Amino acid sequence: MSIIVVGSTAFDDIETPKGKRKRIIGGSCIYFSLAACFKSKPKIVSVVGKDFSKKIFDKLNKKNIDTEGLVVANGKTFSWGGKYKSISEDPETKFTNLNVFENFKPSIPDSYVRNNKIIFLANIDPDLQNNVLDSMKKKKFIGLDTMNFWILSKRKSLDRALNKIDLLTINELELSLISNKKSFKKSIQYIFNNYPIKYLIVKKGSAGSILATKKSFKWIPCFPFANMTDPTGAGDSFAGGLFSFLEKSKKIDENSICLGMIYGSAIASFTIESFGINKIMNLKSNELNLRFNELKKISKIL
Amino acid sequence: MSIIVVGSTAFDDIETPKGKRKRIIGGSCIYFSLAACFKSKPKIVSVVGKDFSKKIFDKLNKKNIDTEGLVVANGKTFSWGGKYKSISEDPETKFTNLNVFENFKPSIPDSYVRNNKIIFLANIDPDLQNNVLDSMKKKKFIGLDTMNFWILSKRKSLDRALNKIDLLTINELELSLISNKKSFKKSIQYIFNNYPIKYLIVKKGSAGSILATKKSFKWIPCFPFANMTDPTGAGDSFAGGLFSFLEKSKKIDENSICLGMIYGSAIASFTIESFGINKIMNLKSNELNLRFNELKKISKIL
Repeated sequence: MSIIVVGSTAFDDIETPKGKRKRIIGGSCIYFSLAACFKSKPKIVSVVGKDFSKKIFDKLNKKNIDTEGLVVANGKTFSWGGKYKSISEDPETKFTNLNVFENFKPSIPDSYVRNNKIIFLANIDPDLQNNVLDSMKKKKFIGLDTMNFWILSKRKSLDRALNKIDLLTINELELSLISNKKSFKKSIQYIFNNYPIKYLIVKKGSAGSILATKKSFKWIPCFPFANMTDPTGAGDSFAGGLFSFLEKSKKIDENSICLGMIYGSAIASFTIESFGINKIMNLKSNELNLRFNELKKISKIL
Repeated sequence: MSIIVVGSTAFDDIETPKGKRKRIIGGSCIYFSLAACFKSKPKIVSVVGKDFSKKIFDKLNKKNIDTEGLVVANGKTFSWGGKYKSISEDPETKFTNLNVFENFKPSIPDSYVRNNKIIFLANIDPDLQNNVLDSMKKKKFIGLDTMNFWILSKRKSLDRALNKIDLLTINELELSLISNKKSFKKSIQYIFNNYPIKYLIVKKGSAGSILATKKSFKWIPCFPFANMTDPTGAGDSFAGGLFSFLEKSKKIDENSICLGMIYGSAIASFTIESFGINKIMNLKSNELNLRFNELKKISKIL
C-alpha cells in the first residue's frame, strides 16, 4: 500500500518578515510528499511545465517519491506569489498564474492504482478532486483540503467531493465559510450534519489543530520551539506526515489520527523553519524522530 | 489553609470588537479571587477608594472571598482604560490612574497569616510584591505575575522577587523582555539558569499555555469553543483557578499543576465570554465542572 497525493506543483515567490525568495519550488503535492516520504512511498499526481528542471524529479525519486503521475505539459509551471505581513496570519496573494494547471486533467497511472487506496486530495479545483474520486474504485481512506476560493466559487462541486471523503482538513475561516456560522462548535456540527465525513481537522496555525469527530474533540499542539521563517507548506507537510503515519498504522481511528497529527506537526515545524522546501528536503530521520518524541512528551498532560 | 492574593482592584473602561463598557469592576485581585472561590476561600490584599461600593464587598463575601485585607483608602479607586483592536492581541492602554494605589503599602491582616501559606502576587509594583514576601515568614507556595512596565522600569526589585518564588506566569513577550533573547527555548532556559523558580507558565492567549520546568515542557490547551467577548482578566482567572486547585491537591507537582492549568483554562474561558466579571460572578459550579471535564477530554490525546 502507498499514498496518492493529487495537488499542485509550483514556483512560489514568498515574502515574510524574515525575508524574500523568488521562484522557489513549492506546491501542495511537493510539501505533502516530502513529508510523507519518511514512512511511505508517496505517488504524486500533478502537472508541471517545461520550465521545471529534471534534476528535481531525480531528487524527489531519490526520496522514495513516485513521480510517474507528475506530468510535464507544454507551457509554464503554475506559479504563486504571496506576502505574509506577520508570520501567524494568512498571506496576501500577490499573483496566481495557473499556466499548465489551466488545462490539467489528472489521470492516475495504472501503476498507482494497483496497490493504492489512501488518497489525499490537496487544495485544487474541486472538479479535479471529483475527477480523481470518480476514476478510482477501491479507496481505503480519503483526505481532502480546500480553500476560500473554491468554497466561494465552486461550492456544488466541492459539496460533491465532501460527500465522498473520510477526512477534511481546513482552517477556522474556511470552516466558517462552509458552514456560514460564526460559532466554532456549530460550524463543526454543520460538517457532521451535512456530510458523511468521519474526521474533521481544523488547523489553527501556531495554536495547533483540533481533531473533531461526531462525538469528540482533541487539541493537538504544534511544536512550540520552531524558529518560524516561512509558513508556506505547513498544512501540506502536516497532512503528508499524518497520512504516511496512518498508512503504517494497523487501524485508522481517533487514536492513530491523534498520534499521526503529532507526527505531522513535528514535520511541519521543520518546514516553517526555512523558506520553501529547503529544510524538509534535507531533513534527517533521526532529527524528525527526536522532535516527534519531544512533541509527544509536550502533548501528554493527563 | 487558604490562598492570599495581592493585586489590584480597579474600575476598567474596556473596548473590544464586541463592544464598549465604562467603569466596570476589574483588577487582578478580583478576577483571581472570583475564579479561586469555587474551591477555596481566597483572601484579598488590595486597596480601593471611597468610590467603591460597599455592595461589592458583600457580593464578594457571599462568594467565600475574604475582604479583610481589601483596604478602603481616602481617594479614588485605581482605574484603567484599554482597547483591544483584535481579541487575540494585547490591548492598547488608553489611561492608567493609580489613585489610591499610589500610596498603597500592602499589609497582611493577622487573621490571614495564621493559616495561609499559598500566595499569589498578581501584576503590581515589584516593590509591593517584595513587601509582602518580606512580611510573611512561612510560605508554602508562591506564584507571581508581572508585566512589561515593571520588567523595564523596576528590574532590580523584580529580580529580588523572582528569587523568592516557586511559580512565574508571564506571556511570551514578557518572557523575551526578561531574558533579552529571541529564541523561546533559550528564554525559558534563561529563567531556570538565573532564578530558583521551579515552574514557569507561559501564557499564549487563545493558543493555550506552556508549563516549563527545568526538565520538561507541557502544552495546555484553552477551551476552543468560548465565545470571545473581552479578554480582560483571563490570565488572572486562569491563575485563580490553578492556585485554588493546587490548594486542594495532595501534592504540588507537575501533574497537579497540569490538571490545575486545565481547570484554570476552563474558568478563564467563561471570563472572556462577557465584559468584566459579569460571567464569572454568576458562574455556577456545575457549569464550570462540565467545561472542566470537557476540556480534560479535549486535552487527553495520548
